[in-house]
Amino acid sequence: MNKFVYSFNEGSKDMKGLLGGKGANLAEMTRIGLPVPFGFTVTTEACNRYLEEGNELADDVVSEIYEKLTELEQVSGKTFGDIENPLLVSVRSGAVVSMPGMMDTILNLGLNDESVVGLAKLTENERFAYDSYRRFIQMFGDVVMEISKSKFDKIFNAQKEKAGAEFDVDLTTDDLKEIIVGYKALVKEELGRNFPQTPKGQLMEAIMAVFRSWNNKRAILYRKINDIPSEYGTAVNVQSMVFGNMGDTSGTGVAFTRSPVNGENKIFGEFLVNAQGEDVVAGIRTPQPITEMAIAFPEVYKKFEDISNILENHYHDMQDMEFTVEKNNLFMLQTRNGKRTAEAAVKLAVDFVNEELIDKETAISRVEPAQIEQLLHPKFDENEEKLAKLLGTGLAASPGAATGNIYFNAEDAKEAVDRGEQTILVRQETSPEDLAGMLIAEGILTARGGMTSHAAVVARGMGKCCVSGCSAAIIDETGKTMLLNGETFNEGDKISLNGTSGNVYEGMIKTVFPELSGDFGTIMKWSDEIRTMKVRANADNPRDAKQAVDFGAEGIGLCRTEHMFFEAERIPAIRRMILADSLKERKDALDALLPYQKKDFYEIFKVMGVRPVTIRLLDPPLNEFLPKTEADTMQLSKEFNMPFEKLINKAEELNEQNPMLGHRGCRIAISYPEIAEMQVEAIITAAIEVKEETGLNIVPEIMIPLVGIQNELKNVKETVIKTIDKCFKTMGNKVDYKIGTMIEIPRAALLADKIAEDAEFFSFGTNDLTQMTFGFSRDDTAGLIKEYIEDGVLDADPFQTIDQEGIGKLVKMGVELGKKTRPNIKLGVCGEHGGDPKSIEFFNKVGLNYVSCSPFRVPIARISAAQATIKNRKK
Amino acid sequence: MNKFVYSFNEGSKDMKGLLGGKGANLAEMTRIGLPVPFGFTVTTEACNRYLEEGNELADDVVSEIYEKLTELEQVSGKTFGDIENPLLVSVRSGAVVSMPGMMDTILNLGLNDESVVGLAKLTENERFAYDSYRRFIQMFGDVVMEISKSKFDKIFNAQKEKAGAEFDVDLTTDDLKEIIVGYKALVKEELGRNFPQTPKGQLMEAIMAVFRSWNNKRAILYRKINDIPSEYGTAVNVQSMVFGNMGDTSGTGVAFTRSPVNGENKIFGEFLVNAQGEDVVAGIRTPQPITEMAIAFPEVYKKFEDISNILENHYHDMQDMEFTVEKNNLFMLQTRNGKRTAEAAVKLAVDFVNEELIDKETAISRVEPAQIEQLLHPKFDENEEKLAKLLGTGLAASPGAATGNIYFNAEDAKEAVDRGEQTILVRQETSPEDLAGMLIAEGILTARGGMTSHAAVVARGMGKCCVSGCSAAIIDETGKTMLLNGETFNEGDKISLNGTSGNVYEGMIKTVFPELSGDFGTIMKWSDEIRTMKVRANADNPRDAKQAVDFGAEGIGLCRTEHMFFEAERIPAIRRMILADSLKERKDALDALLPYQKKDFYEIFKVMGVRPVTIRLLDPPLNEFLPKTEADTMQLSKEFNMPFEKLINKAEELNEQNPMLGHRGCRIAISYPEIAEMQVEAIITAAIEVKEETGLNIVPEIMIPLVGIQNELKNVKETVIKTIDKCFKTMGNKVDYKIGTMIEIPRAALLADKIAEDAEFFSFGTNDLTQMTFGFSRDDTAGLIKEYIEDGVLDADPFQTIDQEGIGKLVKMGVELGKKTRPNIKLGVCGEHGGDPKSIEFFNKVGLNYVSCSPFRVPIARISAAQATIKNRKK
Repeated sequence: MNKFVYSFNEGSKDMKGLLGGKGANLAEMTRIGLPVPFGFTVTTEACNRYLEEGNELADDVVSEIYEKLTELEQVSGKTFGDIENPLLVSVRSGAVVSMPGMMDTILNLGLNDESVVGLAKLTENERFAYDSYRRFIQMFGDVVMEISKSKFDKIFNAQKEKAGAEFDVDLTTDDLKEIIVGYKALVKEELGRNFPQTPKGQLMEAIMAVFRSWNNKRAILYRKINDIPSEYGTAVNVQSMVFGNMGDTSGTGVAFTRSPVNGENKIFGEFLVNAQGEDVVAGIRTPQPITEMAIAFPEVYKKFEDISNILENHYHDMQDMEFTVEKNNLFMLQTRNGKRTAEAAVKLAVDFVNEELIDKETAISRVEPAQIEQLLHPKFDENEEKLAKLLGTGLAASPGAATGNIYFNAEDAKEAVDRGEQTILVRQETSPEDLAGMLIAEGILTARGGMTSHAAVVARGMGKCCVSGCSAAIIDETGKTMLLNGETFNEGDKISLNGTSGNVYEGMIKTVFPELSGDFGTIMKWSDEIRTMKVRANADNPRDAKQAVDFGAEGIGLCRTEHMFFEAERIPAIRRMILADSLKERKDALDALLPYQKKDFYEIFKVMGVRPVTIRLLDPPLNEFLPKTEADTMQLSKEFNMPFEKLINKAEELNEQNPMLGHRGCRIAISYPEIAEMQVEAIITAAIEVKEETGLNIVPEIMIPLVGIQNELKNVKETVIKTIDKCFKTMGNKVDYKIGTMIEIPRAALLADKIAEDAEFFSFGTNDLTQMTFGFSRDDTAGLIKEYIEDGVLDADPFQTIDQEGIGKLVKMGVELGKKTRPNIKLGVCGEHGGDPKSIEFFNKVGLNYVSCSPFRVPIARISAAQATIKNRKK
Repeated sequence: MNKFVYSFNEGSKDMKGLLGGKGANLAEMTRIGLPVPFGFTVTTEACNRYLEEGNELADDVVSEIYEKLTELEQVSGKTFGDIENPLLVSVRSGAVVSMPGMMDTILNLGLNDESVVGLAKLTENERFAYDSYRRFIQMFGDVVMEISKSKFDKIFNAQKEKAGAEFDVDLTTDDLKEIIVGYKALVKEELGRNFPQTPKGQLMEAIMAVFRSWNNKRAILYRKINDIPSEYGTAVNVQSMVFGNMGDTSGTGVAFTRSPVNGENKIFGEFLVNAQGEDVVAGIRTPQPITEMAIAFPEVYKKFEDISNILENHYHDMQDMEFTVEKNNLFMLQTRNGKRTAEAAVKLAVDFVNEELIDKETAISRVEPAQIEQLLHPKFDENEEKLAKLLGTGLAASPGAATGNIYFNAEDAKEAVDRGEQTILVRQETSPEDLAGMLIAEGILTARGGMTSHAAVVARGMGKCCVSGCSAAIIDETGKTMLLNGETFNEGDKISLNGTSGNVYEGMIKTVFPELSGDFGTIMKWSDEIRTMKVRANADNPRDAKQAVDFGAEGIGLCRTEHMFFEAERIPAIRRMILADSLKERKDALDALLPYQKKDFYEIFKVMGVRPVTIRLLDPPLNEFLPKTEADTMQLSKEFNMPFEKLINKAEELNEQNPMLGHRGCRIAISYPEIAEMQVEAIITAAIEVKEETGLNIVPEIMIPLVGIQNELKNVKETVIKTIDKCFKTMGNKVDYKIGTMIEIPRAALLADKIAEDAEFFSFGTNDLTQMTFGFSRDDTAGLIKEYIEDGVLDADPFQTIDQEGIGKLVKMGVELGKKTRPNIKLGVCGEHGGDPKSIEFFNKVGLNYVSCSPFRVPIARISAAQATIKNRKK
């Protein structure tokens, strides 16, 4: 026969599935001899059975509870409902995974008209006893009996008025007794029955209420979002009460074995003399630092320190503990692994290894990669941020903090920076033309665009703070004003952006730069030892390349060549190329671009040395390079001495209904092979020059984008190889090279076996793959995806974390088919997902050789890759 | 040992693979005793061996040829190179499949300085003999020896000048002799050797030249486009010459056993007295109808008639024959199955079955579905079209012929029609606002947009003539002018469109309406008996539904509900719905639409009866319903008494970068469930009313579009079912119904097992599936796809014929996964491919239950489905 109830001395920490986290740890503490008020746990199986049997508690479960209750009475020497020495218990839910939304705690259960007298005696405080009873009825009535809280409040407030009491504490014991009469009448009226006077009845109702709360709406939503199976169920812990409010030799507190803020090896916590846990939560009194406890209760504190050490040594992790002191006796009420900041997480992980409590793998697994990001970006001074005026919230597009004067275009921002100002670039949405402004601004704010809009992607790539899609902001770029939160902001006005939360504030807020501490470096080193997948960075220029190497990148996985074209001295040449009427004109324009491109690659190769560099041939539709406004077009018309009409017609001709599915990527190289020829010439001649100068083996990887058809790849590859051979001849020297392709069109993944015939490497472009496979334009559907997540249609934004079920299936097909044709094919990913921990775990599992992400995410990727290796090993 | 050369009496028609089509048929005719000049065939295997061995003719092949040549000399009683009675032969290529681009025919091979004398004697025409020799050298020099034709021309023209000859025929025998001297000198100079005087040498060179021509560029391209394996190789036929130019008892001709134009059972062909085949081709003399032959050569004609009958009975198909009469002796030079018009194809197929020459399956297989289209649309009077002035050519977007006065917007066109004019709607490109104009115009001409642009798709759906993407036309919609071919056309000017060729003509051309003859009906009936796949139509209104049923549709596979909204009386309501500030306002606007929608469905159900009707919920992005121009917006602002600003802002808000990947399909139903509720209410209440009135079992199929995520389907399905249950209650009656989804997002196909949990049917939307899986916007990439086909990157336009390798793989996955979850799931396709024969064959193979296409393609789909069944059965 199954056992549904366990006394605390029957369980252990390994029984979390059955006893829940709280119950298992209470049993464990009991097992290793720590002072825990006795009690028992009703299991998660009992919960599941209750729910399965239509919210009925089976007779055998009830009997078991009664048995354990009798045992509890014997152990405590108290009796449920006794007028002299009543047993009072707390009833707490305890799921396997800590989970908000469920019924949490009922204290002092067992109070009734008789035992309240016993409580008064025990606590030597009659008022407290009746106030507790009043609170217990109210809480039980609200939570267990589901009577609206406002009805209780009405009775309470009426009594206050009647008694002329300004504050709750002004009520006398008699007032409280009157309130209790009123509460009981309310229960009778609402439910047609008396408030349960038998403690056993109270207990059964409370246990069932906890079970039912497993299926309340908030709990279901939380489980859904956090992928917690609904079959887990919750356990219920019934524990005899101890009282921290029995005078100055009593108290209650919460503490961590070490600092959760910075990891310092010193007990960290708060303590309140003569108080129950509830008082701390209620915020009526301000708790004291735990150090005060050492002064007030030196003996007890010593004991607590010992227990703290025992627990840490036992659990091999920093613990978050709850305790109560009853008349100089210490009781432990809870222990669990403590939450911690990134800084603390890193220090704790390293310290625990040094103290030989855990091994390196465990240390790495304990650092949350997403948290690491906090260590890499400037942030606001916490106190200043709290006081600042919030204007609105957009998407937390690129983390960090930025503060400065707003400007509405790149030029104005640049002038301001030249004057020595800190600036924030404010745009409706950004386009490649804004790059120069983005580069020099502290942060970027846009009114439109999602997490993967141009602004967001580029900002993350630059490691620059960005709040995108702040739709409440009405931005007039021409008039240079922003209307937000009912206020109008003009050029030069000060605002602050929190790219980690999406908040926009008025005025300047002090920013602080966290240091990459030595422990952080240690964790990175260990991660590198363990991980099997390489980490590269997406970098388009020598500066980013340098940053990437500094952060530990082992190569460049994506060097976009188009950003290079937007610089002021180059854009005229690319425009001339686009506007050319003949092949000759186009080639002349390309010849003008060649030295610039060559210099770009020369410098990048210099930085990267033997590290591989994957260079993608021109990708965006050509019209991205043409001016967007009529005024700019007019300007260009003058500059180039070309009829305005002609420019407009060309723009019209190039304009597309759905540019995402239009004339871009390899399609451009097929229509205009001369563009690819120029780029390849720049790559190869630069590589040869660097090789000759440094003697290093420079091996450029040339990547052909947006391939969906085998012949597309064949066609462009032929152009590339022809050009390379020409360069070898001209230079009288050679370099090794690789030619590969992006897998970003669904068809390419489906036919990866064919594509692999001509590709030495695949780089999965999961951004576009996600766009096309879902049919989601990332520029247009940010709002829809948010709606979907809220409605539970999607669990997560597929542009942030790879959709394993759908996109993942395509990636797996791509990997398997690719390897079938070419077993040693090099496989990587260069989409946004390359820097996302969950996605990295997936990429590791399907066998990619590397991930590539923005330089600022490289450390996150390194640790994520190590964690993925550890997880895979375990499986 | 392999045999590489076959005499005509050694082969048969079943040896096409070895002897090529021409050789096999020559052997067959020989075998069944028809008069064929004797000869032999060098096999395709010899060709392959020649090419494999580095263009060397192996010794044993040469010996075999010599052996057969000796046999030929014996049979003919003539000797190669003889001065008295020389053997002359024709050398012709003959691949398995008739294939242009290769070297075709060399006549009179065997001529040299001596045998030319013999030819003069034989033909009793010295001038002819030398002219033949001159031509032979020139042809051989050009084709076999690869000496530029212009060099021969130079010599020839010089002699003409010297002789003062205006025309070629003015040259005397001596002139020709001088030319021959010049030609031979040219050969010597170019190749350093004499023109081959031994006929055997000539023959070997000619055979090898044919073999080599298998791999010339044009031939390779043709094979690639037509999927002909390059391993086939070509055979070479060597046949002793007969002479149709031996005076008035000789002649040559080409004839069909029955009319290839209308199928009439009467010999159809042309004949030329005293002529060689070459003369007919050269067009120097106009051939006479074959009936003249009956008068000129009654005996021979009688014999020819007999042979014609024999051949037809033997081949069980209409034959295309070449023959020569030499001095009243009839010789057959070729026979093959004749090409035919659609009209003839249908009549021949039916007649052959009636004559018990073939069975019904063979009859069906012989009708080319693509041709059938010719029978369904009006066409131009052929002679008038030939004489008309061609202005330009666009894409043949929707077949048929249209002629009328041009108008530049729907309103003007409508007014003109009201005045009694025939109109052509001319637009830059069309949008749903032009629907009314498209409906009443004879044809549509657009300057932009591909084969699957709005104009093309809608026009095909309407069975209306359309030429799209005529990029040479510069259309000023505001100024109401079109500049084309250097001419300016104004409103009311007359043009004519050929939607089958894409040609645009000046002026009016007479159109004729072909009749659906009884034979056509018979073929359709037989097709319906054989095919296993159902054929439905895409129809959005009762008129199209009626047309579809008339053409044999067995249901509606796609009823788009959005077109209904564009009608003048409805568009204000839909606009109010979009512009609503509250749910209440939106619901009010929807309430106004409800009666219209209900009426639509009521009428469609009335037409369709028990035939299934699949209705798709609102699909396009909402901004398609808002006015496009500022003027129209201003107008709406007045009409609705709404600030212009507000309208502009709303339009801005709804505007998308990539609408194809934006907020449309089921995404709209999730954001605004009230829209789906209104549509479902209209569908269900209409169905119940028709059921009650007619007693018929109306079973609407409600289709949820653009599903990519299982939860999207679940979400909308819940809305649909709730509404249905509400309607059942309100109406006090029920109908059966089905709920299903489109599979048009790649992710839906990948996860079809999940999607099938909530879908009773799948309709593959292969248009969108192609767009997203290829990453091709159909509005933007028409030009690119054309370029790709020209460059050989693509074999065919994937929007016209399904890409089996890629999109087909997804469809197959969708089918298999869908059936895994729900074995009896109903599977169909409603994209453009549903009317394409090749695609239909594929859909039949993967096991779809039905295809749905535009009403005018229903007959094509019916016969294609039957052919697919027959093909599958054979496998």
